[in-house]
Amino acid sequence: MLHVKSLDESKMLLKKRFSERCMSCETVPLEKSIDRILFADILSKEHVPGFDRSSVDGYAVMASDTFGCSESLPALLKNIGAVEMGEIPAFTITKGCCCYVPTGGAMPRGADAMVMIEYTETLPDGSIAVEKPSAPGAGIIYKGDDIKPGDIILKAGKRLLPKDIGALAAMGETALSVYKKPRIAVLSTGDELVLPDQAPSMGQIRDVNQSLLLAALVKTGAEPVGYGIIKDMKGKIKNAVAEAVDDYDMVLVSGGTSVGIKDVAEEVLGELGEVLLHGIALKPGKPTIAADVHGKPVIWLPGHPAAAYFVYMLLVEPLLFGILGCTEGPRKESFTLMRTVPSNHGREECMPVSISGGHAVPIPIKSGLITTLSRADGFFIINRDSEGIKQGDRVNVILF
Amino acid sequence: MLHVKSLDESKMLLKKRFSERCMSCETVPLEKSIDRILFADILSKEHVPGFDRSSVDGYAVMASDTFGCSESLPALLKNIGAVEMGEIPAFTITKGCCCYVPTGGAMPRGADAMVMIEYTETLPDGSIAVEKPSAPGAGIIYKGDDIKPGDIILKAGKRLLPKDIGALAAMGETALSVYKKPRIAVLSTGDELVLPDQAPSMGQIRDVNQSLLLAALVKTGAEPVGYGIIKDMKGKIKNAVAEAVDDYDMVLVSGGTSVGIKDVAEEVLGELGEVLLHGIALKPGKPTIAADVHGKPVIWLPGHPAAAYFVYMLLVEPLLFGILGCTEGPRKESFTLMRTVPSNHGREECMPVSISGGHAVPIPIKSGLITTLSRADGFFIINRDSEGIKQGDRVNVILF
Repeated sequence: MLHVKSLDESKMLLKKRFSERCMSCETVPLEKSIDRILFADILSKEHVPGFDRSSVDGYAVMASDTFGCSESLPALLKNIGAVEMGEIPAFTITKGCCCYVPTGGAMPRGADAMVMIEYTETLPDGSIAVEKPSAPGAGIIYKGDDIKPGDIILKAGKRLLPKDIGALAAMGETALSVYKKPRIAVLSTGDELVLPDQAPSMGQIRDVNQSLLLAALVKTGAEPVGYGIIKDMKGKIKNAVAEAVDDYDMVLVSGGTSVGIKDVAEEVLGELGEVLLHGIALKPGKPTIAADVHGKPVIWLPGHPAAAYFVYMLLVEPLLFGILGCTEGPRKESFTLMRTVPSNHGREECMPVSISGGHAVPIPIKSGLITTLSRADGFFIINRDSEGIKQGDRVNVILF
Repeated sequence: MLHVKSLDESKMLLKKRFSERCMSCETVPLEKSIDRILFADILSKEHVPGFDRSSVDGYAVMASDTFGCSESLPALLKNIGAVEMGEIPAFTITKGCCCYVPTGGAMPRGADAMVMIEYTETLPDGSIAVEKPSAPGAGIIYKGDDIKPGDIILKAGKRLLPKDIGALAAMGETALSVYKKPRIAVLSTGDELVLPDQAPSMGQIRDVNQSLLLAALVKTGAEPVGYGIIKDMKGKIKNAVAEAVDDYDMVLVSGGTSVGIKDVAEEVLGELGEVLLHGIALKPGKPTIAADVHGKPVIWLPGHPAAAYFVYMLLVEPLLFGILGCTEGPRKESFTLMRTVPSNHGREECMPVSISGGHAVPIPIKSGLITTLSRADGFFIINRDSEGIKQGDRVNVILF
């Protein structure tokens, strides 16, 4: 029999055991890459911009032609043309000349500064009066100013956001190596469970964990498959888990609250592979079992949906992030606690909270399942050695 | 010519004008409802739990039978059976009797309290010694304790998270009314633009805005369609926008930095419908135009990708939330500013920041496009009347 482990010990144990289980990569087109995890650093192959560009609307000049000019004594320059967007100007700026360049337009040869249009006036004869001097380099973004070949644009393990996709488009990275989505089987056990679309008879309840975990896995970036409800019979559970391990990268089982089923869970996993963990010093969430079956993680979560979800977020998601090579953690934010919560003894405790007006409001422990799930915006962890957390203290809330 | 409006004025103007454009609803199965927006309040039709349940593993008793018992003087009760999960017990607990009930099992008739198994001992003759008194109601969750018929479970406008999907599964809500996803056309204009998978010639750059906006729209919950790059010719742009307005719920155009194209944008939109807004007092983001074309919003965003994305988040996303009936706002979080940023005058300014060690680090204004997009984790707004924001001040960062 394994002894109960702390949450951190449990996380480390799974991380170490499955550190070699990282997903392989696949190539996806840029437009399908949102929320995917980069497999390798993206290095620039190019200069950005690829040519000297104007950063303002105005006139390209030789800076020395503008030195000393002012509103009362403008520099008069001959306008020799306009740069079209997307084209390289054929002409060259020489002493005493200028040309119009729009924002983003290519700088003509010879010019070393821009004068903003606001500081110029077009005279009746077509020449340009410059009323403010420009220093060399003013208003120009030089080739490679932003990015040079070899610069790292995005790092491996990054989950791609819209702005990253914008940067990749700019670099011409239209086919991306990302981690394959881990395929994960989700099983519910429990003789009292019926499917969500069935009307429970007296003594029965609807299975919540499967829907909850499938949705959570999608958000984490996995590809989950529901195995439905397995009856609380050792043979059936063992067959279902064995089949799921063969076909998927990870298996999540939950539930089993019938008499003796807790032992069945450990028996089944022990017969199929090696039980690594039986019991976490976490409230709720203690009856969690983790096993290595043919090198794949099988996690047996508590039957109570809130407990199952806490353990998902605290133990399963970090393991998945590891397998996905993903460098992010859960979404945490600090809030002021609205009401004192009592200390607890000997194990860490998950305290569900709703967020209201920037405060974290603890949801009474006695709240039922639906109330907890529908009202909570997240939860924080009370340390095992905490003396209680006072109203007004800051707490780090893991947001749902 | 319309005068430049503040960001707040612009938001209110669009909100009011398109307040009637709310999407209609469609029904989706629960397992496809993640991230969708609820169209109507979800009210419970049932009691949850639907029957009195035990919240502990232990023995169902008549509380009065346990009064006064202790470890040294246990109450001795006859064990008349065990409740199976998912079944209603056929027997009734009478004075001097008890039965085993697992966590979540139905309470037998007659019993009014649970005794946790830890406080009992099974004697050789099979009877149960109870070593701690239980008060009436102890260890029982009564029918409807969590939810009663008519209670609101989730409110209209809620974006569905995994935990909401769990609550809905528990309530048997397996077909959900959600807002239809608005279908949005995205057009880029600019003669200097090439597609991201093309190699730009000198003077050309790759189109970033289309990829960026398509990805952003997916994250917001819309169904975007890319129209590609439209050449900077009034006729072509007008035809493309007119066609897009016919086919989609909203149209986003971006770019047009060529000489005179800013006027073309206003001309096109003015000829097709009514221009509502031309210019926002926002840096960057000023050259934003909004129009009402046949009752549908057409927003013309700046060509610079960072500016386009700021205006997307500040103006387009709130409008979309309104159309989606969605009650959420952007994801904001407060951070300490790492470095003083100077004041600006007359218009609000978006300051991109990276987040590092809990601090917001301003990204220099001179940073190029890729650097800004790849390094920034969000941005904050400097008010138009701000005297500058000092190192150590708290800023509200809108996170990407």
